[in-house]
Amino acid sequence: MKKIAVVLSGCGFKDGSELTEAVSTLIALSESHANYKAFSPSVDFEAVDHLSGEPLGRRNTLSESARISRGQIADLTQLNVDDYDALVFPGGYGAAKNLCDWASKGAKCQVHPQVEKAILDFHQQNKPIGAICIAPALVARVLGSHGVTVTIGNDVETSREIEKTGAVHVNCPVDDYVTDRETKVITTPAYMYDAKPHEVFTGIQKLVRELVEMA
Amino acid sequence: MKKIAVVLSGCGFKDGSELTEAVSTLIALSESHANYKAFSPSVDFEAVDHLSGEPLGRRNTLSESARISRGQIADLTQLNVDDYDALVFPGGYGAAKNLCDWASKGAKCQVHPQVEKAILDFHQQNKPIGAICIAPALVARVLGSHGVTVTIGNDVETSREIEKTGAVHVNCPVDDYVTDRETKVITTPAYMYDAKPHEVFTGIQKLVRELVEMA
Repeated sequence: MKKIAVVLSGCGFKDGSELTEAVSTLIALSESHANYKAFSPSVDFEAVDHLSGEPLGRRNTLSESARISRGQIADLTQLNVDDYDALVFPGGYGAAKNLCDWASKGAKCQVHPQVEKAILDFHQQNKPIGAICIAPALVARVLGSHGVTVTIGNDVETSREIEKTGAVHVNCPVDDYVTDRETKVITTPAYMYDAKPHEVFTGIQKLVRELVEMA
Repeated sequence: MKKIAVVLSGCGFKDGSELTEAVSTLIALSESHANYKAFSPSVDFEAVDHLSGEPLGRRNTLSESARISRGQIADLTQLNVDDYDALVFPGGYGAAKNLCDWASKGAKCQVHPQVEKAILDFHQQNKPIGAICIAPALVARVLGSHGVTVTIGNDVETSREIEKTGAVHVNCPVDDYVTDRETKVITTPAYMYDAKPHEVFTGIQKLVRELVEMA
């Protein structure tokens, strides 16, 4: 049975992992008979009220991500690449604000050292990496020098920024995915579109099936 | 296109709506081509750290539920039964602690007045009501005097407590559901079992298809 590491970044699309994307990932992994384990770096962040948009005070990515995985989660420092067959990042602003600072710095962003290490470790062992929504930008930042091909849908501004990392961007509809067979990076746009939940689920389900098959 | 009201109770199974259940409900509604709208009563509650189990301070059900529905949510006071064809409650401790006090008082619990009104309004208009996981206990408390039949899986203690409301309990596996054709109440056990995400999704998908068909 394949073992997949899922990296979360909080709980809610405005300050953490997008919930439909994160849950769709877990449903699809479970449906594909893969074992999964959730991880998050421990990052304190300014929480955002998803109703009013107002600040809510400080929360922690590891503690909040535990809501998604029913308490079953480990600090990203515990992730050993030798124990897993693949890595996957759901999206949400958490991927662009808590796992790196893409949201403010784009292609020149800094990636959280544990997140960068995870991507490099899986890449070096030739194990597949999945990334959803805006998370492909994070992977592009780390693997851009390898000419990785990714999709974030069809947003021109974001795709141009991604190409500044050295990565190649290709357009893709919400219910499909893009595989870079060279780097084994698999991406799907999800809520980079103004999409419906079942469309997001379909794209992620296809990505996960490919990820588990390649793992 | 059918219009379905979804009642959330926070964000995370220990103090709000269970996330796989809530997201599965939205995916299945969207897949069934139903229009949905999320609602929550505005209840302040003591948040629980899903990693450590420690208290985290006060949060609000309406604000936290907005994380699940990407900010698209209304106060339950805004729910007008005439505008919707069916009502559905995902589970999680929020359903048993924030929408009523079943978690501490069982069959003698008090139901939040807006939640009770919603259940009675839909019932009186002969519109179907779906309830997932522990939420059938809430529906049993309100419609027990009508002899409603529900399932919460096969937990003996909880099912006996439910029958004290006047409701009938029948056992059901995680990937199936129970329909009471008399009261139009549809229930599925979800995380009342130690289940896998795709099993929970399957049970909820079946419940939602039945709910939308009956609506």
